[in-house]
Amino acid sequence: MRLTGTWPAGLESAFHEYEAALMRDDTGVLDALFEPGPSTLRGDGAGLLRGHEQISAFRSSRGGVARRVLVSVDVQVLGPDAALVVGESRFQDGGRGLQTQLWCRTDGAWRIRTAHVTGRAPAFDRSVWRVLGDPLVPGSGTGVGPGPLAGVRVAVKDLVAVRGQVVGAGNPTWQAEASVEDEHAPAVAVLLDAGADVTGIARTDEFAYALAGRNAHSGTTPNGAAPQRIGGGSTSGAASAVALGQADLALGTDTAGSIRVPASYQGLWGLRTTHGAVPRSGVLPLAQTFDTVGWLTREPELLRRVAGIALGADAAGTGDAGADALGATPVLRGDTVLRGDPLLLSDAVLDAAEPDTRRAFLAWVGRTGRPVQTVELPDLDDLAETLRVVQAAEAHRNHGAWVAAHPAALGADVAERFAAAAAVTAEQESSARARLVELRTALRRVLGNGVLALPTVPGPAPSRTADTAAVLVTRRATLRMTSVAGIGGLPAVTIPALDLQDAPVGVCLVGPASTDLALVDLAIDLARATAVAPASTPAPASTSAPATRS
Amino acid sequence: MRLTGTWPAGLESAFHEYEAALMRDDTGVLDALFEPGPSTLRGDGAGLLRGHEQISAFRSSRGGVARRVLVSVDVQVLGPDAALVVGESRFQDGGRGLQTQLWCRTDGAWRIRTAHVTGRAPAFDRSVWRVLGDPLVPGSGTGVGPGPLAGVRVAVKDLVAVRGQVVGAGNPTWQAEASVEDEHAPAVAVLLDAGADVTGIARTDEFAYALAGRNAHSGTTPNGAAPQRIGGGSTSGAASAVALGQADLALGTDTAGSIRVPASYQGLWGLRTTHGAVPRSGVLPLAQTFDTVGWLTREPELLRRVAGIALGADAAGTGDAGADALGATPVLRGDTVLRGDPLLLSDAVLDAAEPDTRRAFLAWVGRTGRPVQTVELPDLDDLAETLRVVQAAEAHRNHGAWVAAHPAALGADVAERFAAAAAVTAEQESSARARLVELRTALRRVLGNGVLALPTVPGPAPSRTADTAAVLVTRRATLRMTSVAGIGGLPAVTIPALDLQDAPVGVCLVGPASTDLALVDLAIDLARATAVAPASTPAPASTSAPATRS
Repeated sequence: MRLTGTWPAGLESAFHEYEAALMRDDTGVLDALFEPGPSTLRGDGAGLLRGHEQISAFRSSRGGVARRVLVSVDVQVLGPDAALVVGESRFQDGGRGLQTQLWCRTDGAWRIRTAHVTGRAPAFDRSVWRVLGDPLVPGSGTGVGPGPLAGVRVAVKDLVAVRGQVVGAGNPTWQAEASVEDEHAPAVAVLLDAGADVTGIARTDEFAYALAGRNAHSGTTPNGAAPQRIGGGSTSGAASAVALGQADLALGTDTAGSIRVPASYQGLWGLRTTHGAVPRSGVLPLAQTFDTVGWLTREPELLRRVAGIALGADAAGTGDAGADALGATPVLRGDTVLRGDPLLLSDAVLDAAEPDTRRAFLAWVGRTGRPVQTVELPDLDDLAETLRVVQAAEAHRNHGAWVAAHPAALGADVAERFAAAAAVTAEQESSARARLVELRTALRRVLGNGVLALPTVPGPAPSRTADTAAVLVTRRATLRMTSVAGIGGLPAVTIPALDLQDAPVGVCLVGPASTDLALVDLAIDLARATAVAPASTPAPASTSAPATRS
Repeated sequence: MRLTGTWPAGLESAFHEYEAALMRDDTGVLDALFEPGPSTLRGDGAGLLRGHEQISAFRSSRGGVARRVLVSVDVQVLGPDAALVVGESRFQDGGRGLQTQLWCRTDGAWRIRTAHVTGRAPAFDRSVWRVLGDPLVPGSGTGVGPGPLAGVRVAVKDLVAVRGQVVGAGNPTWQAEASVEDEHAPAVAVLLDAGADVTGIARTDEFAYALAGRNAHSGTTPNGAAPQRIGGGSTSGAASAVALGQADLALGTDTAGSIRVPASYQGLWGLRTTHGAVPRSGVLPLAQTFDTVGWLTREPELLRRVAGIALGADAAGTGDAGADALGATPVLRGDTVLRGDPLLLSDAVLDAAEPDTRRAFLAWVGRTGRPVQTVELPDLDDLAETLRVVQAAEAHRNHGAWVAAHPAALGADVAERFAAAAAVTAEQESSARARLVELRTALRRVLGNGVLALPTVPGPAPSRTADTAAVLVTRRATLRMTSVAGIGGLPAVTIPALDLQDAPVGVCLVGPASTDLALVDLAIDLARATAVAPASTPAPASTSAPATRS
């Protein structure tokens, strides 16, 4: 170890005590060597932890650090009771790390007040991606010139066929048995034809049968907007990839919220298309009655461009699909303009949201300047339960035999969901199917040609350390809100519009069937109208001023 | 932007001036806002830069940073003239960053003395990898149990066939035209059969026709041991992946040093096998007379295990292959023991090394405790030039037509090399081939059953900022040393044994044909015998003590 600088009295032993405690993952000693209180900071590539409590919780859940040795230490004395230590380390199994620590002495004891840590980079984040390339599949383009999506990097949910790859469905056992795909799914091909590149295949919750982004096999996807929270699913890895800047476009699916939820959690734009508007061939089904294909982006313009291309707005484009029967392919009403005037609101949906979300949402509605009209939706529990039963019956029909044949293959939560699905009786299913037709008809009658506005989800994403029970409670509350579009077979766009507890929540617009493009246009208009000065302008503005330390 | 803490007078404007200069890549302002002198530090995931000069050079070569906005700033005042600032930022095109800066005021001006920067992570490092999976190809295993290489992550040089993938050869145009491989190369299959996983396909210098690891299309691979230096090639990405801990085993090729050079530069073990000992089918040829397959690892035990498996030591294994003709497949002398007693040294080779390398090498030889014997090798320039001409003739025969048909496809340095190769006349080639037989015979006679020890390369890797001319000079000096094994068709193992200017240099052992395993065994013995207390033990030992700053 190369030492530069001189240790102030007592610091050398504290530093090495800390390093040794790291190596044996002695969280008690590590906790004791970090300053108590809310001002202590620890940051790394995943974000900044604030306060001793958050740092301690992080440490007790990470399960230790890789073996390493220090190769250099630089000590800079900043006064009698403060020193900055920069340490470079070499990991036993390859790679290097860097740590910068501000040590302060209070009551004679040296402790870390601020730490910035850079571990070695893994080859890639396996919670986000399964396969990656530079690119994995280059855009083909069809005509002259680079194509309207040239340069766009696509993350494909691991439920959608990419030629030469298997569909892994978020489950390693399924993946190991899967055959290599001979053809791209049309939803992939249309993007490649427009010049976009497929960067890779991104993680999904198992069989898309979850909303959390916590895959038992590949881990919890990071939340690119709120690092201490879960990222949401089931279009989990692709959403994270877009939020992290590792892709520009997520190609996902939404059965009961699997695009809208991760978009809302990670501050992204997302479009669940009208049921049937995008071909689902080459997409592993979960529940055909509700499965839709859609996209997530950071910027609305790209979402609009992709939707326009994938929905073939340049071709055909007119015709009223409002009367499409269940399962029929709707015709896009490409020339529709949705004025969103008045915006339709539902008290029941607002009651389903958390109070802070409700307040922020209503303030947003106010900023739109649009008149509002309250509508009476069918009972939300009825919507959610009807969707749950039909979804379960279809999920079981699609995957029940495989799940039964591979009893240990699934993570606990998804296994439990499939077990419940297997228990749905034929009578329950047929009664739910009958109810579904009634509810869909009722919903479409209530909404008419109007646009329903609602918070996309009840509130910000749960914490990464939330237990399974807490995540399940959130899931149930979420489904009461996301079922509206699911039962209706309606398009839904989510706008990254609300900022709560330093975490985003989306505003969702649900429009008439086949008005997908008009709905995105309206969303863009409303986002512009409601834009506030960004909270993150470079202009300095002191918002708090704790006592100066020295 | 959320501010926590209070700015000391003058720091707020300096901080924002710095941030604004970053955004417009104003290196003059950035330089002025970093403290002058050798003690200034700037670290990130690639390593720690020391001193204003190094930091300034880095900045002028990186080409700016991505657009971002600050989302939070924490200011901690540490005295009248020192403050720590922690800033979190959000990039315009996704992802977040973190910066910790120690600002100090001297002569009334605030400047950064130490900075620790974490940018957003890319999906993967495209200078290292081309395609990646979790894993890309899982190990198959052949019998019962997990297989002797279970859990080993392999980086395959992009010159070797992996089923379902193309061979990219380090050139995007070639890659775009390449067909998907139907079968794994035997060199890949033997690893998969033993249970190893292929993590991905790693970058190579174009057509393996370089030693630097500076690919004009995918960039310069990082040096996992000495971040400010080049990583070496042509087994460039796979070597970096192993050094960085992103893989455990690099499957590479060595024609004129392409395994030994990156191993030496990055502190890895490497084995160039006896010419013909590992089947080369499924490997894109550069120059068949010299092309060999081999491996790089962090630890010698894995190298030994892989070599034992791939060379089929458990099967056949005996027989004297010393008399193999050019191109004949040698039979491994599996039961050979090489005593390395005496070690053979060559004054000419030592003269070809840099003085510091020579000194460190001789000290290492002394630590082996083995007697030495000086041998007279054929003229090194003759070896290098003969290898160059035959290699060029074969490279042109293999790829000249393709290169001619794609005049703009290659990077400048490799294009120039192919142009020179095209100029080799039939007479030059046949005369070089005749000379090759003489030289090989002479070499083998001089070395007999002994083991030649030499520095693997002249010295540490060149700096990442070295210009093309400097890299070429190094290449020529290197070839005078690496040609010995190349001309001889002999196995060569490189040991990460020397530590120079904070950068590694390898010690190379060249043994008789087909003694590959015995050679690795000997290398392990010598490495044990020469081991010094690691320079990086946790035990604190102050080595320098500049004046304490306050």
